[in-house]
This record gives sequence, C-alpha cells and structure tokens, in this order.
Amino acid sequence: MTSDCKKSAELIDGKKIAGDMRKVLKREIEEWVQNNNTRPPSLVAVLVGEDPASQKYVHFKMNAAKEVGITSKTINLNTSITEEELLDIVNKLNQDETVDGILVQLPLPEHVSERKICNAVDPQKDVDGFHLNNIGKLCVNKDTLIPCTALAVVELIKRSKIETFGKNVVVCGRSKNVGLPIAMLLHSDYREELPGMEATVTICHRNTPREELIYFAKRADIIISATGVVNLITPDMVKPGACVIDVGITRIKVDGKTRVVGDVDFEGVSKIAGHITPVPGGVGPMTVTMLMKNTFQAAQCLKAST
Amino acid sequence: MTSDCKKSAELIDGKKIAGDMRKVLKREIEEWVQNNNTRPPSLVAVLVGEDPASQKYVHFKMNAAKEVGITSKTINLNTSITEEELLDIVNKLNQDETVDGILVQLPLPEHVSERKICNAVDPQKDVDGFHLNNIGKLCVNKDTLIPCTALAVVELIKRSKIETFGKNVVVCGRSKNVGLPIAMLLHSDYREELPGMEATVTICHRNTPREELIYFAKRADIIISATGVVNLITPDMVKPGACVIDVGITRIKVDGKTRVVGDVDFEGVSKIAGHITPVPGGVGPMTVTMLMKNTFQAAQCLKAST
Repeated sequence: MTSDCKKSAELIDGKKIAGDMRKVLKREIEEWVQNNNTRPPSLVAVLVGEDPASQKYVHFKMNAAKEVGITSKTINLNTSITEEELLDIVNKLNQDETVDGILVQLPLPEHVSERKICNAVDPQKDVDGFHLNNIGKLCVNKDTLIPCTALAVVELIKRSKIETFGKNVVVCGRSKNVGLPIAMLLHSDYREELPGMEATVTICHRNTPREELIYFAKRADIIISATGVVNLITPDMVKPGACVIDVGITRIKVDGKTRVVGDVDFEGVSKIAGHITPVPGGVGPMTVTMLMKNTFQAAQCLKAST
Repeated sequence: MTSDCKKSAELIDGKKIAGDMRKVLKREIEEWVQNNNTRPPSLVAVLVGEDPASQKYVHFKMNAAKEVGITSKTINLNTSITEEELLDIVNKLNQDETVDGILVQLPLPEHVSERKICNAVDPQKDVDGFHLNNIGKLCVNKDTLIPCTALAVVELIKRSKIETFGKNVVVCGRSKNVGLPIAMLLHSDYREELPGMEATVTICHRNTPREELIYFAKRADIIISATGVVNLITPDMVKPGACVIDVGITRIKVDGKTRVVGDVDFEGVSKIAGHITPVPGGVGPMTVTMLMKNTFQAAQCLKAST
C-alpha cells in the first residue's frame, strides 16, 4: 500500500508542536536572562470588560507566559473606561521600562476606537503586530513584530514540511489581523528580509461567490480558512492531498453544551486532504506560542537598543 | 448584430480620460485657491542622477502639474550624493511650508536606501504613498495617500464601468509600489473607509508557474499585469470579454528605434478581451494625473491642519 492510498489526512497537531516550541523557548529565555544578567521578558495584557471568550484567551496567554518564563500581568478594566483613559494606560505601559510586550485584547467596547488604541502602543512593544507601522513593514517584507495568527499558520506549514514555493494558496477571510497578514506572508518574496514563502495567493472573502471559491480551492495546495463560517470548507472543494489549515473559532451549542468548531468540515475534509489542523488544538495553541516568541523578540530588541 | 459579436476589445483610452480629469482638476484647484485665498498646491520632485527614463517621468509630472495649476519644481542631484545629504534635503522639504507634495523619483543609486528615503518623507506630503505609515493605512483600508499607479488602475476600471464586486481579478506582479497596492485596493471591503472594490484577488508573481497563471487568468474578469515581462499575457489565457489592464513599461529596440511596450500581447489579446488599455497611452498618463490628485489632496489636508 502506497501512501497515496491512505484514507485519512495527517493531523497537524498544533498543541503538540506548540508544547515542543514552548520547551525550546523556555530554555532560550533562561539562557538569555543568564547571559545578559537581566530580568525575564515581561508581557502586560489589557482586558476591557468581561467577555468570556476574551477572558479565556487572556487566561491562555498568561498561562503560556508562565510556562516559558515570561513575567506577565493582566490589567482588568471596566467597559465604562473612556478612550482617553485607555490611551493613558497604554502610554504609561509604553514608558514603563519593566514592560516589553503590550497586548490590548480585542474587541474593545464600541465607544473606543480599536485602531487608535492599536496605534498608541509603542511599535517596539506591539507584540500583536497591529500598529500601522508594523503592518506597513510586514507589507514591504521587513522583519518586524507580525500578527501571531499569521506566524502560527506559517510555522505549522513549515514544521509539517509543506512546500509553498510556486504553490497555490487560498486564504478565506481578509481581516486585518488574521487573513490579510497570512496572505502577505504566504506570497512574500524570498529575496526580502522576511522568510519568503513564494506562493501564489488568492484572497477570498464574503463576497466571493461560492462557485468561484470552489474553483480556486480545488486548485489549491494549501487552503487557509479564517472566516468564522462553520462548514465553509467542504470535501468537494479540496484537492486530494492538499493541506487545510483551519483558523476559524466558532462557539456552537450541541445538546446544550458549548463546543468550539472551525470553518472546516473536519470529518469530511480529513478523508481528502493530505494534512489538516483540528479545532481546537490546531492554530489556537500555536498563536499563543507565537505571542510568547514575539514578546521575547521585543524584549531582545528593547534590551539591544538600551 | 449584437455587441457580443464584436471582434475587438473596447480601448480604455487612458490619455483621453487623464486629459478629461486634468481639466476638472484644474477647475477644482482654481476654485479651492480662490475660496481659501491661498497659494496653489505645490509639488517638488527630487531627481538623483541622469537616468533617461527617470528624467522623462519627472518631465511628464512637471508638465501635468503646470497643466492643472500646481506649482512645481525639480531638484536635480548628482549620483554622488550621500544618503545623509539626501535625507537632509528631504527634511528641509518636510519643514518647508510652501511645499505640499514631495516625490523622490526612484530608483535611487545603490548606496542610498530607498526604504529609508521613502520613510523620511513627511507622510502628509508623501504623494507617492510609499511611506510605511501610508502603506499600513492602505492595508487597513484607511483613507490616505495611495500609490498613484494603483489609483490609476482603479480609476480606469471605474470609468470604464467594469464591475468588480464579487468578480475575479488576477494581479501579476507583487512589487511594493505597484502590484501590492493594486491587490490591496481591488480586494478591499466596502464597509471600510476606502472605496471597497470587493473583488476576489489572486496575486501571481515570478514564481507562479505558467500553467497556474493560465488557470487563474482564464477565470479572471479583470487581469492587471505589472511585471515588465513582454508578452506575458497572451490571448489563450484571457476569458472572452475580460478587462485587461497593462501596467508594464518596457523599452525595446525595433529596427534601431526604441519603442515602449507593455506586458500584454496587445494585438492578440484585444481580439478576445472586452476592454484593454494600450501602452503607451493607458495607465501611464493616468498615473501622472493621480499624482496631481494626491498633491491637491495633500495641499488640502495640510491647509486644513494649519
């Protein structure tokens, strides 16, 4: 029996890969702290309001920080906070030399401009990679702090030894924090600063007709879906052997219980695809890990510039 | 005979459209100057060295400025200029209140970092839209100064009443100043600040295999080529009725004479396409016109902020 005959895609185990990476990162951070006789990297999360999903994400991030030896703190704020007060808090964190990474958990209350807050974070401490300057740098393929989900997707592809050079990639979803940076990294030029992935990238979105999505997806060597549309990616649109990365996170009720699902019909697609990420346990834990990498990177850069 | 029977694509006459736009722009600028009792908008071009193509482009730009009532000046510099000296000149222009738009003609000599120079231009005077901050804003669909070629392509598509919503667009070439901003504008979300074009965009480049380019191009409602590869776009890869926009500019010798050609096999493709731009006389004159629009926009913003 050749490998072509296998009936089920290889699982890209994000949880395991993330665990492995965190062990290495922990060691690297320990060494850096020792060699530079310095304090550990530090991360501050700003959490406005009591959205359960946001609380959970921040909780995961703080746990991961602990796991790799990053000092962390969460600032919990009431939704009644004004934009000005929040800008003030961000500015204080910018000036605080004991803080390397700042993340403001999105979404923010409607009366606060997310763009203004993201741009207020010192670009060097912007471990989410949401500052306009960092987005601009990513677009011109300069090394910088890059959104963690995009880094997570690239890392999973690389570690699964999926070729991207000259391959076709479909990215579903064009959000500024997820879909767009993924598309940027995947089509990037290897002659520039960032690791060039050199894929041909098609950006699909809510206004891509389904038959067109199918046309592009059927030709794709890699499908990356980041839409929050449950069962968007079905087996009929996947090329046998393709790699399918599911970035979607949707909470649904099944028999009264809340379950987290992605964009991909996992059961069906895993019979066709060559590689597939599960939800949960795929991109999620890797995203949190890349946040730790970004925090370490920010700490190193800040240390080097003092 | 219905229009389906016609044998030749409708020509998108960039030169004529640009001429019409300049007449309107001239009137708008006159009115603005009068209503605000202010000096006309002003544009300064910085030209390093004696590259004939660069000289010609700057010459076109200065002529267009004159045509629409923008004051303009070219600073000619020797290729021996250092990066520091050039940064100094840019800084002086940034501080000069009589200057609204600054354009540094690219390419620059090898010993000068183009990225550093582009980032030195005050983002508010950056009429080329090359500053990292402006690139970042474009990527998050915020209104800003956008690269002129991308604006030209969009304007030609709109004025030719080509639908983009939910349509397929292939962009060939991913350069930071041309291909990438075109792809950004074409897939943009109509719910954001910039006029959302809402197309499904495939970004092809030098490492896209030809058979894959054909697969995408054959499905495209709009093909935009910005590569400098002569005859890249051939009739066999064009869907009947598609719109083909040729951004390429290559100088070739024919019978001892220099001719300018684009990326598209014009003769062949115009038998298949529904709309086509010529080279020269297509995107080129529109790009120069959009530079004038950007200069006017910069002048208005600077005036409003004083």
